Amino acid sequence: MATASADHAVHHNNDVDYVIRYRFGGDDASESGKQLELLLRTLVEIGLQTEVRQGDESTLLVFVRATKKSVKRGVYHSRVRDWLYGVRNTEPESASTAEAQTEAERLRVIYHMITVPKEEGGAGISPGHGEWKNIDAIFSLHDEQTNNRCMREWSRKTFLTPEDLDQIRGQFGESVALYFAFLQSYFRFLVFPALFGFSCWLLLGSFSIIYTVVNSLWCIIFIEYWKRQEVDLSCRWQTKGVSVVRTKRREFIAEKEVRDEGTGEVRGVFPAQKRIYRQLLQIPFALLSTVALGVIIATCFAIEIFISEVYNGPLKTYLVFIPTILLSSLVPTMSAVLTAVATKLNDYENFETKDAYDIALTQKIFVINFITSYLPVFLTAFVYVPFASLIVPYLDIFQVTVRPFVSKEHATTARTADFSIDPDRLRKQVIYFTVTAQIVGFAMETIVPYLKQNLLRKYKEYQKKQGKVETTGSDSESENDQSVSFDDPVDEVKFLTRARNEAELSDYDVTDDLREMCIQFGYLALFSPVWPLVPVSFLANNWVELRSDFFKICMECRRPVPLRADTIGPWLESLGFLSWVGSITSSALIYMFNNGHPGPNGEPSIIKGWALLLTIFFSEHLYLIVRYAVRAAIDKIELPNSRQDRTNHYLMRKRYLESTLRTDVVGNEPDDEKDIRGSELDEISVKTLEDDARRSSLHETDPADRFWRRQKGWLESARVGQSIIQAQVGKEGKKQQ
Amino acid sequence: MATASADHAVHHNNDVDYVIRYRFGGDDASESGKQLELLLRTLVEIGLQTEVRQGDESTLLVFVRATKKSVKRGVYHSRVRDWLYGVRNTEPESASTAEAQTEAERLRVIYHMITVPKEEGGAGISPGHGEWKNIDAIFSLHDEQTNNRCMREWSRKTFLTPEDLDQIRGQFGESVALYFAFLQSYFRFLVFPALFGFSCWLLLGSFSIIYTVVNSLWCIIFIEYWKRQEVDLSCRWQTKGVSVVRTKRREFIAEKEVRDEGTGEVRGVFPAQKRIYRQLLQIPFALLSTVALGVIIATCFAIEIFISEVYNGPLKTYLVFIPTILLSSLVPTMSAVLTAVATKLNDYENFETKDAYDIALTQKIFVINFITSYLPVFLTAFVYVPFASLIVPYLDIFQVTVRPFVSKEHATTARTADFSIDPDRLRKQVIYFTVTAQIVGFAMETIVPYLKQNLLRKYKEYQKKQGKVETTGSDSESENDQSVSFDDPVDEVKFLTRARNEAELSDYDVTDDLREMCIQFGYLALFSPVWPLVPVSFLANNWVELRSDFFKICMECRRPVPLRADTIGPWLESLGFLSWVGSITSSALIYMFNNGHPGPNGEPSIIKGWALLLTIFFSEHLYLIVRYAVRAAIDKIELPNSRQDRTNHYLMRKRYLESTLRTDVVGNEPDDEKDIRGSELDEISVKTLEDDARRSSLHETDPADRFWRRQKGWLESARVGQSIIQAQVGKEGKKQQ
Repeated sequence: MATASADHAVHHNNDVDYVIRYRFGGDDASESGKQLELLLRTLVEIGLQTEVRQGDESTLLVFVRATKKSVKRGVYHSRVRDWLYGVRNTEPESASTAEAQTEAERLRVIYHMITVPKEEGGAGISPGHGEWKNIDAIFSLHDEQTNNRCMREWSRKTFLTPEDLDQIRGQFGESVALYFAFLQSYFRFLVFPALFGFSCWLLLGSFSIIYTVVNSLWCIIFIEYWKRQEVDLSCRWQTKGVSVVRTKRREFIAEKEVRDEGTGEVRGVFPAQKRIYRQLLQIPFALLSTVALGVIIATCFAIEIFISEVYNGPLKTYLVFIPTILLSSLVPTMSAVLTAVATKLNDYENFETKDAYDIALTQKIFVINFITSYLPVFLTAFVYVPFASLIVPYLDIFQVTVRPFVSKEHATTARTADFSIDPDRLRKQVIYFTVTAQIVGFAMETIVPYLKQNLLRKYKEYQKKQGKVETTGSDSESENDQSVSFDDPVDEVKFLTRARNEAELSDYDVTDDLREMCIQFGYLALFSPVWPLVPVSFLANNWVELRSDFFKICMECRRPVPLRADTIGPWLESLGFLSWVGSITSSALIYMFNNGHPGPNGEPSIIKGWALLLTIFFSEHLYLIVRYAVRAAIDKIELPNSRQDRTNHYLMRKRYLESTLRTDVVGNEPDDEKDIRGSELDEISVKTLEDDARRSSLHETDPADRFWRRQKGWLESARVGQSIIQAQVGKEGKKQQ
Repeated sequence: MATASADHAVHHNNDVDYVIRYRFGGDDASESGKQLELLLRTLVEIGLQTEVRQGDESTLLVFVRATKKSVKRGVYHSRVRDWLYGVRNTEPESASTAEAQTEAERLRVIYHMITVPKEEGGAGISPGHGEWKNIDAIFSLHDEQTNNRCMREWSRKTFLTPEDLDQIRGQFGESVALYFAFLQSYFRFLVFPALFGFSCWLLLGSFSIIYTVVNSLWCIIFIEYWKRQEVDLSCRWQTKGVSVVRTKRREFIAEKEVRDEGTGEVRGVFPAQKRIYRQLLQIPFALLSTVALGVIIATCFAIEIFISEVYNGPLKTYLVFIPTILLSSLVPTMSAVLTAVATKLNDYENFETKDAYDIALTQKIFVINFITSYLPVFLTAFVYVPFASLIVPYLDIFQVTVRPFVSKEHATTARTADFSIDPDRLRKQVIYFTVTAQIVGFAMETIVPYLKQNLLRKYKEYQKKQGKVETTGSDSESENDQSVSFDDPVDEVKFLTRARNEAELSDYDVTDDLREMCIQFGYLALFSPVWPLVPVSFLANNWVELRSDFFKICMECRRPVPLRADTIGPWLESLGFLSWVGSITSSALIYMFNNGHPGPNGEPSIIKGWALLLTIFFSEHLYLIVRYAVRAAIDKIELPNSRQDRTNHYLMRKRYLESTLRTDVVGNEPDDEKDIRGSELDEISVKTLEDDARRSSLHETDPADRFWRRQKGWLESARVGQSIIQAQVGKEGKKQQ
């Protein structure tokens, strides 16, 4: 990461560190003006330089730049804070020499200066709250040159190197870089199951036991490996343990103030027990989501079975879309409602830090994700295929869905006896989720927003041109400019256009991408025995995903504020959970469908309840045992960065000792034993001993002292011992005679 | 912990710190003498004073005492080492003021000085190895007064206080104190299930669902609570993370030498991968133990069923003892063989530290313990009771066991149709294991050794008297002493007798006591639905156990060398494992035996395979979910000592910063913004702006600088912004018109 190129890039951005978008609404110009003054004055007080330009019809853009000195001070304070809380093991250098190591650190420090409350040394500007409610967004401008260079380079590579990841870290911060590191690891690991799955698909077909066992083992190893890799990266990027230095949420409502006697800080606290009671509400929430979503999905599923396989009347090809439409409309609606409920619940739980808040929200929403993503396949695999013949007769009630379109006489259904399950349904559904849905998701995530932005931009320009043509006659001079619609100095036009475009972009949330990868992993863990080419599809998809996500960050989102992270957090737990559930579902699938016929065959053999449960029991416990063993084995392998970290910790403490105490840290100089050794050389004579004995019996009344004076020095002790030995040996000899 | 009483106690021991027992065999007196000299000289070189007395016919006792200065140095070095490795968060004071906080610390430091290799600053004396092969034992003398006082006090109390535990820590070290803390916690927690179990036994009888659910929940809560308590104690006793400062095993064979660039130390390493391969041998070992012990126990069980319930001939009442005899002889033998195999395997795995060695050995031996303790009850509950009628006809082959005693004609068996299972067998067996076996174990562990020692002592005295009477005629003067048989000075007789007696005692191993408690807990977790009074029995047993174990340490074992520990280690995992298995067995027992009949009833209802497996499936997963929730809840509760530890860590780092850097740690003095604010007060006029514009376009070619000069100061920016706002608001107003 050459500082020269970073400087050059910043310079290309006119040295702008942050852009604050100030929305002045349409009503009270003087009020907005006063608040703008307040904002600018506050910024200047913490050492930032400001420039104001017009954003669009209702916003201003305030460009801020930090002075070198304030950056140094901010970096120094940040490092001191890290040091105090144990995140950092090398002590911070003095304030005058503190330099930001990466662009991301610099930006983070400045953002910290802007947003952190006044008590902690910042400006206390939090967008949308209180006196800052007119502030829309605080973002920094993209470093276009570096972005383009990276995208060009990586489109030619297969694997990213650790230096590439360091580059991402330098640009966008550790949180984003950790996501890319995870994606890269996942991609690298996918090579093996892709090859293995391909050969199994060729040779063994679906539902092969070998493939399933290897797949489960792969899941275990990947997750344990990533846990270690995370720790190693957090050591390399010096973010280990960073979750303790999180700043408080503004929405946090403390119950009482407590003075910490040790550190002298006054903190607001909310008792953990109270929060635990509030968290118990998650249980009914989980049940509610399960029931609500489950009912919708199951009903649509049943309708679909009815229409596609039982119903046999006119308009069938069109009616088949009814369940799809129902599903596509109801499920997102219900998900949105449940997500809103989850967010309210999360607010009620009153977390102190944003980190804890996000983690808890992720866990709640995971329930919704799990059901919407996997329930359809569950239903097909475990309800439709085994029990369809039992259920189908009851599906006649779904005739009501057809009724609006077809009259009663025309609606006919296949006779129940003619009904036979579609053996390929399960495989087709899995292929849909793992191939089609991924491609559609990619399009929705990356291509559509890009097109949308470009179209919107062109539309706006068109509108402005139209607007100018209409109002040409009655306007003042300043609006007769043909090329610009704002009062921009000529040499800033290009720059300001770019700033305005970037202000229109959305914010990037790494959680959504992690969620996507996690759900994808779930398909691999849960359902890949159905179609062994699943990892192949994911391998291809992830190669594109990594580059398209980077493209998305660079082109379709504002530059994310660099956040630090030492773990992908709750997603790691979710991966473990999915892997565990996978052991259960995989074994169930194998039992039900692996009936010896080579090639894809949908008909299950006769299912015995106890045999199925026994299979699940054994495979789940075997999974747990193997996971325990793999965890124990991988824990023993120490990665280079962790060792470096430990060494730093050790050296740091050694230096501290040497500086403060200036004594021998390790040494073994018995320079006070002369008094003991001195008497070694004395001649021991019987007379001396008797004299001592008399002296001691007369003067010493302390039995301990008398005890210790009987043998002066080790030589005398040795002689006494020798005599005892010889006396005893002599006795033994006499006894034997 | 009054230092005065400690001093007094040590004084009572004649200020002796350690006693080294030197065995001189019977052969080469001069060789033994030379080695004795070597020992004494080595001891003196590290600063210890020595006195030699006779032990018994073949041993010498070398009493050592450390000088104040060498103790200070040793304490200082030990604290420095703790500090460097992060165990300790308050930096060590200087060498001249270092004082041992407790008697245990002092003894540990001196032991460390004696045994640690010369490269690390010690004397390198390891009993039984190399040049020290004549050294039998190194131990310290009991502090009799404190021991007696504690025993008297605690025999009157029900619960120990944290101060009592601190007392144990001060006397015997943290490892032993942690065991007692665990036992105390376990005892305190047992009160609830004892009361609840008693009421369930009265009201609901055996196999009640409510009792089982509450029992499982109790197990979960106890284990999670103890995990936190352990951490809290390790903070209080400053042993947190102490496992990194372990000294190396002498038996460790390094594969190669590696120089640590960071710390400059040269260490021998053994690659972790190689060790992992060697550890794979544990799998066949576990299988072998399971099969070997399983076969023995099952066979004896079958023989017992045969003889007690099927056989009906003469000598039945005596023949019933055959399986008991077989069991009592074969199982310990096979256990000993398997333990020896496990130890050899453990040696082969070549662990670096004694800690790791002990942990691995414990894990291996746990397999053996698990099978010998629980398999008999498993067989009764899950093989005998459900399937007896199927198996009994095959038991006729066991007639061979009866044949040696009874002739063929007399041996008759009950007709198969007459066979009916004994419904009380399961309950009787559980009562045996949880009441009778505990009492017998207590007797074997505490009472028998005590009696044995006293008898042995009396026998030795008797023998000596006999020996003296026989040899009176032909002996020299020195052996005519009636009261002593060794050349003891008169005022030391009592002391030396005590020292000799203590030298004869065995070593204390806390692992055995922990194992016992762990196995006991297993009965509670696995089988207590069979007989709800199990916790009552354990409650009574553990009250006695705590005091009898203390008695055992004081009276029947040498004073243990104080070791530090921050966890009970692998036993915590074993507790969790037993609790997990308990969820499976409890639900299976409830399903099989809870058939609605009130009161103890042994006949199981018809067992459907799938229903049983389904019950197990649900209850196990419910157990895991509840455990996850309890763990999450308890993790959030911060215990006082942990908080204190964190505060110390924080303050320590703060002091370091203040001492080395002497700069403002937290401050926010923007004393360099005068240059920015200065221009606020300038008058802005159109002319000035135009001049600036001309100037910048002529002289500045840097677009960034030009950008930042357009608005000097925040006031100007504010005015510019204000004008933009008003212009825009005006436009909006015009549009609306």
